[in-house]
Amino acid sequence: MRVFVDCDPGIDDAVALAYLAARPEVEIVGVGAVFGNGGVEVTADNALRLLGLYGRPGVPVAVGASRPLVQEPRLAPHVHGENGLGGVELPAPTGSPVAESAAELLVRLARSHPGELDVLAVGPLTNLAIALGLEPRLPELVRRLVVMGGAVRVPGNVSSHAEANINNDPEAAEAVFGAGFDLDLVALDVTMETVATGEWLEELKGVPGERASRTSDFLDFYADFYKGIFGVRQCAMHDPLAAAVLVDPHLVTESVEAPVRVELAGSLTRGMTVADLRPRPGADGRRPVRVVTAVAGGEFLGRMLDALR
Amino acid sequence: MRVFVDCDPGIDDAVALAYLAARPEVEIVGVGAVFGNGGVEVTADNALRLLGLYGRPGVPVAVGASRPLVQEPRLAPHVHGENGLGGVELPAPTGSPVAESAAELLVRLARSHPGELDVLAVGPLTNLAIALGLEPRLPELVRRLVVMGGAVRVPGNVSSHAEANINNDPEAAEAVFGAGFDLDLVALDVTMETVATGEWLEELKGVPGERASRTSDFLDFYADFYKGIFGVRQCAMHDPLAAAVLVDPHLVTESVEAPVRVELAGSLTRGMTVADLRPRPGADGRRPVRVVTAVAGGEFLGRMLDALR
Amino acid sequence: MRVFVDCDPGIDDAVALAYLAARPEVEIVGVGAVFGNGGVEVTADNALRLLGLYGRPGVPVAVGASRPLVQEPRLAPHVHGENGLGGVELPAPTGSPVAESAAELLVRLARSHPGELDVLAVGPLTNLAIALGLEPRLPELVRRLVVMGGAVRVPGNVSSHAEANINNDPEAAEAVFGAGFDLDLVALDVTMETVATGEWLEELKGVPGERASRTSDFLDFYADFYKGIFGVRQCAMHDPLAAAVLVDPHLVTESVEAPVRVELAGSLTRGMTVADLRPRPGADGRRPVRVVTAVAGGEFLGRMLDALR
Amino acid sequence: MRVFVDCDPGIDDAVALAYLAARPEVEIVGVGAVFGNGGVEVTADNALRLLGLYGRPGVPVAVGASRPLVQEPRLAPHVHGENGLGGVELPAPTGSPVAESAAELLVRLARSHPGELDVLAVGPLTNLAIALGLEPRLPELVRRLVVMGGAVRVPGNVSSHAEANINNDPEAAEAVFGAGFDLDLVALDVTMETVATGEWLEELKGVPGERASRTSDFLDFYADFYKGIFGVRQCAMHDPLAAAVLVDPHLVTESVEAPVRVELAGSLTRGMTVADLRPRPGADGRRPVRVVTAVAGGEFLGRMLDALR
Repeated sequence: MRVFVDCDPGIDDAVALAYLAARPEVEIVGVGAVFGNGGVEVTADNALRLLGLYGRPGVPVAVGASRPLVQEPRLAPHVHGENGLGGVELPAPTGSPVAESAAELLVRLARSHPGELDVLAVGPLTNLAIALGLEPRLPELVRRLVVMGGAVRVPGNVSSHAEANINNDPEAAEAVFGAGFDLDLVALDVTMETVATGEWLEELKGVPGERASRTSDFLDFYADFYKGIFGVRQCAMHDPLAAAVLVDPHLVTESVEAPVRVELAGSLTRGMTVADLRPRPGADGRRPVRVVTAVAGGEFLGRMLDALR
Repeated sequence: MRVFVDCDPGIDDAVALAYLAARPEVEIVGVGAVFGNGGVEVTADNALRLLGLYGRPGVPVAVGASRPLVQEPRLAPHVHGENGLGGVELPAPTGSPVAESAAELLVRLARSHPGELDVLAVGPLTNLAIALGLEPRLPELVRRLVVMGGAVRVPGNVSSHAEANINNDPEAAEAVFGAGFDLDLVALDVTMETVATGEWLEELKGVPGERASRTSDFLDFYADFYKGIFGVRQCAMHDPLAAAVLVDPHLVTESVEAPVRVELAGSLTRGMTVADLRPRPGADGRRPVRVVTAVAGGEFLGRMLDALR
Repeated sequence: MRVFVDCDPGIDDAVALAYLAARPEVEIVGVGAVFGNGGVEVTADNALRLLGLYGRPGVPVAVGASRPLVQEPRLAPHVHGENGLGGVELPAPTGSPVAESAAELLVRLARSHPGELDVLAVGPLTNLAIALGLEPRLPELVRRLVVMGGAVRVPGNVSSHAEANINNDPEAAEAVFGAGFDLDLVALDVTMETVATGEWLEELKGVPGERASRTSDFLDFYADFYKGIFGVRQCAMHDPLAAAVLVDPHLVTESVEAPVRVELAGSLTRGMTVADLRPRPGADGRRPVRVVTAVAGGEFLGRMLDALR
Repeated sequence: MRVFVDCDPGIDDAVALAYLAARPEVEIVGVGAVFGNGGVEVTADNALRLLGLYGRPGVPVAVGASRPLVQEPRLAPHVHGENGLGGVELPAPTGSPVAESAAELLVRLARSHPGELDVLAVGPLTNLAIALGLEPRLPELVRRLVVMGGAVRVPGNVSSHAEANINNDPEAAEAVFGAGFDLDLVALDVTMETVATGEWLEELKGVPGERASRTSDFLDFYADFYKGIFGVRQCAMHDPLAAAVLVDPHLVTESVEAPVRVELAGSLTRGMTVADLRPRPGADGRRPVRVVTAVAGGEFLGRMLDALR
């Protein structure tokens, strides 16, 4: 399968790339970088370094949006450390980003392989929204889109109801959710339930090799951050879980189809991912989104560990 | 205990009045009527008739707001039938509404019994907001306020996230939630889980006497409406559950204290009851609300039946 | 004519009272105080003192709203000095506020004199909105309402498009503008064009007597504030101009009837007074407002001086 | 001078192209088409036909956005007739649109001629917003941007405060106004004052040649539409005036620098162009916009006629 990854690495983006890169059947045909867990120059550079680390040094990386579509940029909290990778230094990349922007690369790849390209989006959805601006038929050209973002029935992580990826560019997310993609949404509802425990982190430490070792370093930083949230050292696996939903769809044990939009105007709820989960949702003519509501977390964590072996 | 009831009867308002009226230790010191499940003239007239039916004919009933504080009135759906009581005709009231408005009556009673008045609000919160306008110290004068309204973690009943009582006057609800009352919120989260089943409704039919018989007639109409939602003939007990939370607080088996506000500006979420359920909610200096998250539903339904015996 | 004045004195409120009090044909039947240019205790006390100063010591003054209907109170800028009257100390009032709230007093007076009461509102419209909550027929009971507020075609004074009185309680203003009053709006469009010049202020200094002398003291403080805006020492006569529009309607040389509402949801324009001045405005079924667009400013300033003689 | 025109022809877009094409010193280096006065296929086709008519058949035309950045598309009113050109049939174009999208063409041209490209935008600003997504340095690369859009101190033409170009894509306009361009805004404030009178239209009829004759046909259709607004047969020259402001800046007799944003969240004012015209506007760190407030209308209309001779 051909996969385009749009990301803002970012610690859990890194782990998502590891998950994909370990799979021989996955051809990562391109990576778009976007602002988010750091400026886009940092995230593009990190993408190149991570593709090197995880054994895919030749994948084209395109620099994407440096700021949201409409709203003023906000400073990201230092959840991922100053370099976006928990301060872990990776070797300098051997290559450079391509000349195209991330949106242009995505559009070109989708046109080259109509109906055969899968997209994993684990950062703000700005690049995808710009790509839609360039090519409104993108939802028909792309086979499947998996998005990590939103908080549907659980509290948000940047406000009472907003999750960071969506909140970092609500207008872009609204454009993407409304565009008609075959779309799975992997929200905090499942990612906050799918945590790498202290035990798992210990097990990872025992895995030999550079990949596992560097990944363990990233996650150590992340686990310290999450200790403040969970009370114990463990970390939510937001982006890797979305990668798994893309390549191992059987891990989804429950999902619900629902109209999904983004609140753009609320004074309390701006940036909220609004899923209409009523038994008979209001019809707005848009293609519904599959909201993932439960996953086989144990199997996922096992596969994650396998990927790093 | 002295109780002021603000309501828009309404079938489940009727049953809430039945629950209170059956309790000798409850002195219903006043009832305010508000628009909602019908115009305020209808709801005031129904309140008088219901107090007669349930054996409290002398309670002063005050006409309150005929429309929301700010927004344009909306036509209510005919959930409760044309007369608000499922078409069931009750005897004409022996008395008339008092000359004061509902807000003035509430303020006067609260000042007369400072710290001793409990308030049950099971309609739009317009009368309470006006009362706050007349007497900003109302939250200190009132002992406890129980509100039926909102949909905190479950879908709404008028839009994907808004519940009817709050949505019928979002500005009033925001004013009330922010005023500093000792406040329990009984939202759809619990009321949609606490349903009078077909069996219960049958049992009620077997209870002798005018009170049970008329109430059974109301609920028959209601159950037909809910059949479209639940698929089977049963009905959610929104308002009676709030009454029970007021007079039988032990029925609350779980609740969470959280800042609660109302979204006034959202294009998708206007009227949503926004509870900040994060482990560390944003502090806004307001007194938190107790959101009831679980109740002893079986015991409640048994007590409800007892009340009608 | 019977006039009820709702105000938040405030320097220009003071001068508005002077304008009215000087007219023997005007019976000031009641004054409501509201928060705004100071807390409501201050503005109520000032109202009593000013009625004493201007020869109407017996007028009932009612304390009104201490905060807006819905939004959080904001600290007023010290445009009017710490005591609201530019630091000028007036003799303590001989009487006290009445027991009723401002809204209740207004409703009672309107019911007592249906079709004969004129209302001048020169502060936030909170009291009027509460009165509407108590008595939805208020617009039919009141003969005429003149409101000082809004900035229709000119910049606002608290944001690019919002004026202070409306912005201090946008929800209340929206409720009042939509209620169907026979309503003249005296906005910054005319009040910023009707300024007491340095020359006029000098002439006032020459007028003998306590009334003129104290008023001159107020305006000296105000002129210093406005020097920062106009570049020269002069002051806009917001509230007195509204008083003049009420009692001397011939001073209005141009006005336009238009639907007027208040933006409640805008992120840039919340609190803006939105008049639909298109040749064919959108019809929303509401009674239009007369927006005063030009006045005989010279004659007004002459009459203002006469009032203080 | 090198000019890129982004447009949605459209009758007055056509006349704007005529104004530019008549000037030998103006090199039209590219034209972007956008939805607006018709779908983007129609406006791109019209652009090609119009460039043929006005003697610039070789100019590259790029198809741009077919819908707004975020909001749902709205059906445009048939202000410009079914074909967007008042039903006037022009010869089929000799060429086709280029393969690039309008945003990509604009970015490429701006990069090729840094600091030397002027942009005229007379439709919804969607293409420019997408171009900003591809190249955030666009405001430094482009020398000058003239936008036809907004209603600053006068009523709007789609709601009380919104003008069609901005309202057709408010999010895009907000992105463009905030991006830091050297930007002149030509709003309804001046375009509604600069009308081709019946006399001028008659004079145009006397001008020989295909260009004038076809243009006269377009404007006849437009004048009939405007008769409903002005009461007499004449037409506002929105887009040609913006073209004139670009190439003949001396026609601007008055302008004001002000922060300009677009209201995205208002329930009454969404789509409003919000200029902060206070003497001391709030500083938001953005580069201000030059809002054109007066033009030499007579000279402009003379030049317009010359352009068609």
